[in-house]
Amino acid sequence: MPVNLNAPQAHELLPVRGCRIGTAAAQIKKPGRKDLTLIEVSAGARVAASFTQNRFCAAPVTIAREHLQTSGGIRALLINTGNANAGTGEDGIRNARASCAAVAGHLGVAPRDVLPFSTGVIMEPLPLAKIATALPQCVAALGDDNWLDAANAIMTTDIVAKGISRQLDIDGQRITVTGIAKGSGMIHPNMATMLCFVATDAAVAQALLDSMLQRAVAQSFNAITVDGDTSTNDACVLIATGQSDAAEISDAAAPAAQNLQQVLNEVTRLLAQAIVRDGEGATKFMTIRVAQGRDQAECRRVAYAIAHSPLVKTAFFASDPNLGRLLAAIGYAGVSDLDVNGVQLYLGDLLVAERGGRSAGYDEARAQQYMRGAELDVNVLLGRGTAEETVWTCDFSYDYVKINAEYRS
Amino acid sequence: MPVNLNAPQAHELLPVRGCRIGTAAAQIKKPGRKDLTLIEVSAGARVAASFTQNRFCAAPVTIAREHLQTSGGIRALLINTGNANAGTGEDGIRNARASCAAVAGHLGVAPRDVLPFSTGVIMEPLPLAKIATALPQCVAALGDDNWLDAANAIMTTDIVAKGISRQLDIDGQRITVTGIAKGSGMIHPNMATMLCFVATDAAVAQALLDSMLQRAVAQSFNAITVDGDTSTNDACVLIATGQSDAAEISDAAAPAAQNLQQVLNEVTRLLAQAIVRDGEGATKFMTIRVAQGRDQAECRRVAYAIAHSPLVKTAFFASDPNLGRLLAAIGYAGVSDLDVNGVQLYLGDLLVAERGGRSAGYDEARAQQYMRGAELDVNVLLGRGTAEETVWTCDFSYDYVKINAEYRS
Repeated sequence: MPVNLNAPQAHELLPVRGCRIGTAAAQIKKPGRKDLTLIEVSAGARVAASFTQNRFCAAPVTIAREHLQTSGGIRALLINTGNANAGTGEDGIRNARASCAAVAGHLGVAPRDVLPFSTGVIMEPLPLAKIATALPQCVAALGDDNWLDAANAIMTTDIVAKGISRQLDIDGQRITVTGIAKGSGMIHPNMATMLCFVATDAAVAQALLDSMLQRAVAQSFNAITVDGDTSTNDACVLIATGQSDAAEISDAAAPAAQNLQQVLNEVTRLLAQAIVRDGEGATKFMTIRVAQGRDQAECRRVAYAIAHSPLVKTAFFASDPNLGRLLAAIGYAGVSDLDVNGVQLYLGDLLVAERGGRSAGYDEARAQQYMRGAELDVNVLLGRGTAEETVWTCDFSYDYVKINAEYRS
Repeated sequence: MPVNLNAPQAHELLPVRGCRIGTAAAQIKKPGRKDLTLIEVSAGARVAASFTQNRFCAAPVTIAREHLQTSGGIRALLINTGNANAGTGEDGIRNARASCAAVAGHLGVAPRDVLPFSTGVIMEPLPLAKIATALPQCVAALGDDNWLDAANAIMTTDIVAKGISRQLDIDGQRITVTGIAKGSGMIHPNMATMLCFVATDAAVAQALLDSMLQRAVAQSFNAITVDGDTSTNDACVLIATGQSDAAEISDAAAPAAQNLQQVLNEVTRLLAQAIVRDGEGATKFMTIRVAQGRDQAECRRVAYAIAHSPLVKTAFFASDPNLGRLLAAIGYAGVSDLDVNGVQLYLGDLLVAERGGRSAGYDEARAQQYMRGAELDVNVLLGRGTAEETVWTCDFSYDYVKINAEYRS
């Protein structure tokens, strides 16, 4: 079950002026399940996107990148689950283009103004006819209040829908930011099998929107991992419709930009954490903070060595304060001149290891008591600088293996 | 259960002149189980060793490195299971020294002529008194024919003892090479929780012995992985007693050296593969061969991306030909200019993917039939060069999680 995570209520996901959403059941993989989502955005909206770094990127990623380059203005996003349209070669490219053309026909826009997104099984042909058949239902359903529908319709192995809204004031105008996301296996930095759509009615210049997205992603989706795999698909999209009455923001140093960045950071961070909380088989939510490093890169290396270690993750699943596995992961993280005698390791506020071994005050009973919690903080002080980084992950359970061994059956 | 692996018979492990072995039950962790092994080597024997690269290396690793530097000639190795004497700070160093001194007292050699090895739970104090009490039994048991006893006594979570002997002729003399090893979790390149002791009665100059060991390790223990973790302990040791009547080998180009290297490569490779076959929870043995790369480094990156992917490993556990996960792993391996359209993927002899997608002749039924086997070959052709590398790994099962969640209980 997800770790301290509940689906949002419909009324908690606030409409964003200039965004309309419709969903449908296209029967792509599981009959009767909503699996197709159309997001229509108003003319003049600006869109920024960040995609997987995997060299085997999926056809929709290729086409979405192309359309972002060539479109005069993105007007719609089409998202299907059940099929990733990845590892599908030239046919996959054709199918991704055809799905955009189908949307374009319904909405009276150009195919290049449509961005396609797919998630699900890899290397199966995209069932284009099913999508085309269901698309009119999406169009007919288009409405302001359907964010929760969309949050549900984009799920794959997720147990809980993920969405959040925040508001702020710009120029005395009330601005809304609403985001939805899906996980949940294969989550890793570099945009793994993860889809996130965030929209705001603020007006933001394209260059600033791009950099705002990159900053938000760096501290959210690129700081989580479930199993270390990086997927072929998947993207984080930021839409600014400009439908509020606030003036356009173009200067990153302006207070309005900074306030909006802060809200975007919070929305994306909470969505990213929600993906980890709903990680496949997760029973614990772990925050790995590595501080006193020489630079952020080495802090990240240490944090990810811990977060990726199956031995650490199975020990956390067992609520076992197995300090040795934590120290071992720190030791092999690739910080070649690390003085292990200068490292301090904390579980929450408990100093558990220092000077290359257990701390003098180590109390196994207290450490075990701490490990029984569902929210666990691992704090590592490297004792060699002032840089720090935080990474979020979950434990590794029987159910992780079960879910991933049976995914295609 | 181990994948196509049986324990050797006692008579299959041939004595090596100049090596005597004794084992005892020191009650370190589990009562009644042999957990202490003493290997005595004759005066004049040469010893080479390769150790973990983990910065949190264990106390015995530190002391063994020191003794290899300072000793005039190693005369004994002491190996205990049940306790790794790692993450034990200064006390751990003192205990490792004291265990060497105890051996030295019994054998009438200097403490610096003894190498200590420990494996087991990390961060618990080494129970020195138990070791000292059991040591006389090891000494009393010293004999030529105890290699299988040792192979059993060095096991931790291993199910099956691992040992192998080979013979070759040098100068018309029959030379023996006998090796034993233990795994089995946390196996990774850079010498993870793995102990391996190989002895020969050949006479080999120290510099050549060192380079022979490095070559053997590179193509064996540094080409396997079970879960990607690198341990704090553990070592591969090569002993050349020189007790045969063959002349000393010092020239790597001499036929005798090349023949011996070939036998050492085979012995270490089979032992390394045995560790994978007995990987924690393993049900499949996978050979990942990556060819047509620009250089060996990129071939290794791709092979390890596949071998470390929990999604690939759970799919193999499920006998699921999930080509998408394989392609995804190739795609995120960090070969940034990889042209995915030039990549070919084979399961055994079946061409299953090319040109960015499934191959035209892909037959799911045949692929599934292939995946039901216990010995699986993944062949990747990168289509950009002539380099190649091979890595061995196992699948990821329920039992892996179970074993590692319960290890300390």
